[in-house]
Formats: sequence, C-alpha cells, structure tokens
Amino acid sequence: MKKEMFGHEISVLRDTFRRLLHRKAKTNIAKLIKKTHPADLAVIYRFFTENDQNYLFNLISDNEYAAELLSELDESILKDLLEDILPDRIIPIIRNSSSDDQTTILNALPEEKAKAIIDLLHKDEQENIEEMLAYPEDSAGSMMSRDVFTLNEELTANEAIKDLQNQERAEMVFYLYVTNDENHLVGVISLRDLATTPAATKLKDIMIRNFQYVRAETDQEEVAKIVSRYNLLAVPVISNTDEMLGIVTVDDVVDVIREEATEDFLQMAGAGKDREILLKSSWGNAKARLPWLFASWIGGVVAILIIGFFENMVQSIVALAAFIPVIIGMGGNIGTQSSTIIVRGLATGRIDFGNDLKLILKELSVGLILGSLYGLLLGTLAFFFFKEAPILFGVVVGLSICSSMVIATTIGTMVPLLLRKLSIDPAIATGPFVTTTIDILGVGIYFLIASALLL
Amino acid sequence: MKKEMFGHEISVLRDTFRRLLHRKAKTNIAKLIKKTHPADLAVIYRFFTENDQNYLFNLISDNEYAAELLSELDESILKDLLEDILPDRIIPIIRNSSSDDQTTILNALPEEKAKAIIDLLHKDEQENIEEMLAYPEDSAGSMMSRDVFTLNEELTANEAIKDLQNQERAEMVFYLYVTNDENHLVGVISLRDLATTPAATKLKDIMIRNFQYVRAETDQEEVAKIVSRYNLLAVPVISNTDEMLGIVTVDDVVDVIREEATEDFLQMAGAGKDREILLKSSWGNAKARLPWLFASWIGGVVAILIIGFFENMVQSIVALAAFIPVIIGMGGNIGTQSSTIIVRGLATGRIDFGNDLKLILKELSVGLILGSLYGLLLGTLAFFFFKEAPILFGVVVGLSICSSMVIATTIGTMVPLLLRKLSIDPAIATGPFVTTTIDILGVGIYFLIASALLL
Repeated sequence: MKKEMFGHEISVLRDTFRRLLHRKAKTNIAKLIKKTHPADLAVIYRFFTENDQNYLFNLISDNEYAAELLSELDESILKDLLEDILPDRIIPIIRNSSSDDQTTILNALPEEKAKAIIDLLHKDEQENIEEMLAYPEDSAGSMMSRDVFTLNEELTANEAIKDLQNQERAEMVFYLYVTNDENHLVGVISLRDLATTPAATKLKDIMIRNFQYVRAETDQEEVAKIVSRYNLLAVPVISNTDEMLGIVTVDDVVDVIREEATEDFLQMAGAGKDREILLKSSWGNAKARLPWLFASWIGGVVAILIIGFFENMVQSIVALAAFIPVIIGMGGNIGTQSSTIIVRGLATGRIDFGNDLKLILKELSVGLILGSLYGLLLGTLAFFFFKEAPILFGVVVGLSICSSMVIATTIGTMVPLLLRKLSIDPAIATGPFVTTTIDILGVGIYFLIASALLL
Repeated sequence: MKKEMFGHEISVLRDTFRRLLHRKAKTNIAKLIKKTHPADLAVIYRFFTENDQNYLFNLISDNEYAAELLSELDESILKDLLEDILPDRIIPIIRNSSSDDQTTILNALPEEKAKAIIDLLHKDEQENIEEMLAYPEDSAGSMMSRDVFTLNEELTANEAIKDLQNQERAEMVFYLYVTNDENHLVGVISLRDLATTPAATKLKDIMIRNFQYVRAETDQEEVAKIVSRYNLLAVPVISNTDEMLGIVTVDDVVDVIREEATEDFLQMAGAGKDREILLKSSWGNAKARLPWLFASWIGGVVAILIIGFFENMVQSIVALAAFIPVIIGMGGNIGTQSSTIIVRGLATGRIDFGNDLKLILKELSVGLILGSLYGLLLGTLAFFFFKEAPILFGVVVGLSICSSMVIATTIGTMVPLLLRKLSIDPAIATGPFVTTTIDILGVGIYFLIASALLL
C-alpha cells in the first residue's frame, strides 16, 4: 500500500532523485519515475534546476505519464520546460492529453511554437483544439473536458450499458448525458441508476430532467460555486443552442477553489496574484510586491504633509506624536477585519443579494462598539499619563480612536461592495486602497479634532 | 432545464417564499419546497427569522429532503433549528441521513437531547453512531461515509457487477474496494475498469494495489491535500488493522477546502475563525474581533511609551513625528505580504520541507531590495523638504525605513514557520503577532537611529 506522500516522504523521494541525478543513473531514474505518481513528481520538480528538470523529462518514455506530469506542473515550470522540448516530442504527448490539458500545454508554449505544433496535427484534432483555445481564459469552456459522449433518450438501459462499455476515451464517467433527436441535452442519469434499472426501460423514463449546467462562457468561479453547492462530480457545459460541449469535473473545480483562494490571499495582502510567487527569484518577488507598497508609500507621504501642516501644534503638545501609531494602527486593523469579512463573504457566495446597506450599517455599529471601548480605554490612559498635556487631550485621543475605527469599518465594508458593483475583483484593490485611505483619514481626523479642541 | 441559481434567482426565490410565508400559504409553500434544491433552501434560510425557519421545516414531509437540508445548513442555524424539533421528528431524519451527516446533526444538538435520541435508536444504529462520534473532530473518521461495501479479491468481474446492483445504501459508488480473506483492504478498481473487463476475470487480477488511503485519525486538511493532489473522487479510510472503515468523498473535501480557506482569511485578519461571522449580531461580531484588536492596542501602548521616552527629541525635531506613520506603515505592509505568502504556502503544501533558512534569507533579501528603494525615496524627500531638520535627518529616515522593512520581512517569514514547528496553526497567531511586533520594532528602531545620529 502506498502511504500518504506528504512532508517527510516527499523530501526523501526528492533526495533519492537528487542522488541518482548526481550519478546520472539513467536506468534507475527511469525506474523510479515509473514508481512515482506524476502529481508527486510535479511537486519535486519545484526543487530541481532547469537542467535537471529537462534531464528527468527526457527519461520519461510513457507519453501518457508525460502528459499527466505536464498537467500537474506549476505554470512557470511548465513554460520553462516546454521551451526546451522539440515539437516531435510534444505532439504525441498532446495526443495523449485530455482536452483541457491540451489547452494548458498549448497556452504555456510560445505562440509561434504552439502554432507550428497545431499545424502538424490532423485536421480534426486541429479543429477541436482551436475551438478550445477560442474560449475565454478561466471560463467553463477552457477548462472542460470534451471526452464525453451522449446517448439518445430513446435508447434502452441495456443498449446504453453496451454503448458505455465501448467508449474508449471517456475516462471519467460519472453521469450519462441524454440528448433528444435535435441533439439537445435533455437529461442526466447516474451510472448507479442505470445499473439498477430493468434492461428494457428507455433512458427518457429514468433520466433526471431538472439538472445543473453551465455555458461555455461561464466564469470558473461560478462553475466552482455550482459544483460545490450542489455536491456534483461533474457539470455539463452546453452551447447557446443547448448542445452538449463537454463537462467540467470536480477535480478541476478543487484546483480552481484552491487557486482562487490563494490569489485572494495574496491580493488582499498586496502581494500580486501570482500563485507561484514562492518560485520566483528575490528580484521577481520584489517586483510583484512593489506596486502595493507604493500605494501605501503615497499614503505615508500624505500623512507626512498632514502632520507637517500641524507642526506647531505638535511642538507645543508633544504627546500628540506618541498616539499617532495607535490611532492609525487600530483603524487599519479593524478596517482590515471588515474588508476581509466582506471580500471572503463575496467570494464564498455568503453575500450575494441586495443587502449592502444592512451590511454597512452593521459594520458601522461594530466600529462604534469597539471604537467606544478602545477610545475610552486609550482616552483614560492619555488623561492619566500625560498630565502635562492640555486637560482635553484625553478627549481628543478617545474621540479620534473612535472616529478612526468607525470610519475604518465603513470604508472596509463599502470598498469591496463598490468594487463588486463595478465588476472589479474586490480582492485586488481592497487591501491597498482600504489601508492607505484609513492611514490618511485617521491622521487627518486626529489632528483636526486636536486643533478644534486644544487650540 | 434548471438554470444556475445564483445571485438574482436566489433572491427571487427568497422573495417568493417570503410572500407565501406572509400569507401562511401552507400548501403552496410545501409545493415550492419540493421544487427547491435543499442546498438552495439552506442559502435562503440565512435570510429568515427563527420562527419562519421552524415553520418552513415543519412543512417538509420527506425525511430524506429534511436530512439533506439539515446537512447543508450553516452550523449556527442548524443548532437553533434543532433546539425546537422534537426527538420523534429527528429520529426518522437521522435514519435517512448518511453517516457523516448523522454526526453533524447529533453534534449540533444539546448533549442531553443527543443522548436521548441515540437511546431511542436500535442497538446496531447506536453502535455505529457512537463509533462515529468517538473520532476526533475534523478527522477523516468524523467526516467519512460508512455507506460503502467491499468485495473479496477472489470474486470475478461478473459476480462483482451483480453484487454492486444489489447494494441499496451505497449511493456514491466511484471505486470498488477489494479485500482479502483477512478483511484487509488490498486493492481498488474503478467502476469503468470493471465494466470493460471480461466477465470471468478475478478482481485481484485487475485491481490497483498501489492506492491512496488515510487513517481515521488523519486530519481533514491532510485528507483534502491527498484528494486534491491525486485528483481522487474518494479516499478510503482504514483502521490500524488495515480494515476498511469508510470513504471520504470529494464533495466533502470541497467543503473542507473552502472552509479552511475562509478560516485562514479571518484569522490572518484577526477576526476570529467563525465562518458564520456574517450571521452574528453586531455584539457577537464585535466580541469575536475584540481580542486581536487588543493585541494591536498593546502594541500601540508600547509605541506610546517609546515615543514618550524620546519626548525631548521630538520637541526639538518635530519632523520626526511626521514620518512615524510611513515607517510603521511600510514595515507593517511588507511584513503582512511575507506572512501571507508563507501562511498560504504552508496551507497549500507549497512549503513542506526543511527549507526554512532559504525562505527566510530570500524574504530578507526582498526586504533589503524594497527597503533600500523606499528608504532612498523617502530619505531624499526628507532631506529636501524638511530643511529645518538636522542635516542627517534624511539618513535617519532612509535607514529606518530600510531596517523596519528588512525586520518586517524576516519576522513575517519566521513567525508562521515557527508556529508550524510548534504545531500551532500558523494562520491563528501570525496576523496579530506580526503586525504588533513590527509596530513596536519599527518605532523603536526609528527613534534609536535618530538618537544615535541626531543627538
């Protein structure tokens, strides 16, 4: 029995490969590859140099294995690897790939090379591939598998079973898809229901007519929501004329869910959206993270101008400076809480309806509760510990904390809701925008209140 | 054909239910429920009062539908709903639930009521349920479905197909699980392979012996990693004596992946880990978010003490105060980037091996690159625009920005790695700890450098 290959065991396997690579022990490496799951080899690839990656790949003789490995590789590794492989080697691999993996491989190739390879394929293969490549990226069409077959509704259960047994390509059969004479998808039957039905029953009498489906243009996030909400193993993709184009299977949906979550995590932290950021060099990494830091830099510069403007007040009441970090810190943190709750709620479909005002008011009241509490705490502290400061200093601090926290929850809630209305991914811009805005407003309000009450 | 029911359509359905509820139109509601997918009704439940939720539930006559609805409900709604339902009504629903949903329902009940219900069940049902309840929460054992069956390896393909057709309960059959005479799980066969095999072939000659499995104690995150890495539809759960206990299916894994991501999002933002935070009242919401704000409050207070200590310096060089926000802001933001990248890398298995030092050094060099750049930018700005400040003021600002960013990347990387070593969930404590630490260190370094170079 194969044990779960995580952590420790993957690193043992990686070290074994390293030793064999060092000795250039071709035969042993080829043997070890055969025993390694392509998904595991794809993980180990992350730790090899480009040379070693190419060397290993050339030792894979089984085209199906090679196809599976390619489909599991990280995108950046796949690109580097494919650059060095000749079209003669890629073509048989493409032929052994499922239709969605074909798209992945061809999209990872430099455009000219991809064209050259497509030109070398048979006419019908070309047409299929070009159709797949024409679907928008991240759509159901681009991720679907076309290796499905349909059965006419007039067939009997027995005929369907025979048909099924003759299907070569359709590797992942979960449901049978039933069409009418116009070739429209009209029903779905689970394999299990088929197996337990009397032989002469017609498909149209046992099929479920009320099923979930998506269109080729449906966004992959939407597909993921449907598959996960209804616990499906696969969802059919149909054309605008109701013909069946393919299926999106749950294993691809699992990848989408993970990937979208990772992208949202990175975007919320202002670290780009490249899921493979850990594979980048320090320079590439820094480049991806620079823009959002620039946004926060702008916020910092505005804060400098504001505080600079109140220079004289700071000079006469130095205690004001001491409370700057806590005022922007509390605002920033509660604002991040709000925006995270909203962004995640939008991503998981928990916020989907016209309830925006209610959400904003609720977050505002959370800001008021927590702002009053921490304002009181910090105002009291300011009053008792900064006795040289004006008598109202504690009030200034308390009011500022409270207002900055109320504004922060409101902005943290409104920004993602607004972005969503504008059809911009809420995760992209929420992090940078919210924190920077709160920094500026927090400092501004603090000094405005101070100048109103203390001067 | 049923169209995808998201956004707009769910809200139309909700409004229809509302209208019918308002009129107490029992018959129409019962009809509408029958036409609504339990997963959709579970979403709509979020928008109803407890009274309406109970009223609707009492109109569901189909126990299987009721069981599915309960399994789809949010935990907090499930708890409230179950409190008001009599044991007489719960028992038939429990009998119609899959074994993992039985655990969910019983765990949501008050302990005494759960016990009372278990006591009312048959002896063998009791034993099964008690076994399930004994597995640790969030383990493979607690989420597995026990409705599976195994076949002896000596059976022929034909006998296996007949056996399969007689199985009533096993609703989700993806793979056939093959045992030897000692009842140990020794192989797996896909349904597809079985269907295309000559009738007389023995199972042991076509089964895959090299398959993935998990133990009952395996954590659900680990299960999710295995299912998603190897693109499985289900993974068998086996006992320590290699007997098959059940399977975890991919639809439950999809839920785990979504839920774990949501928990990590909230924890990283210091907003607790309750996925249902949007369902809470403002008070409940504020309570969940208070603790982490307290951590950042402590950080703020320490910053007050530090700046208070350097009071005289601030009074003579007021420009120092103006740069406080940008120094802690830049540090905090780049530190959040680092910790997010590492926490997510740990969660998705991209960081799994003994490469900690390399990771830390890389993040440190990213901090150095970006710190030098922004330090130079801000130092120059300080030099040219704050002419009254001492000549070295620009150097102080530049050096402080750079050091605070380098320290931030290092801490942002080390903290989650360290927490993981201590078997603490890196997401829980990383957010609060990293930001607070960076606030304090940023301010501290700034004033130390200032006092070294300016006094």
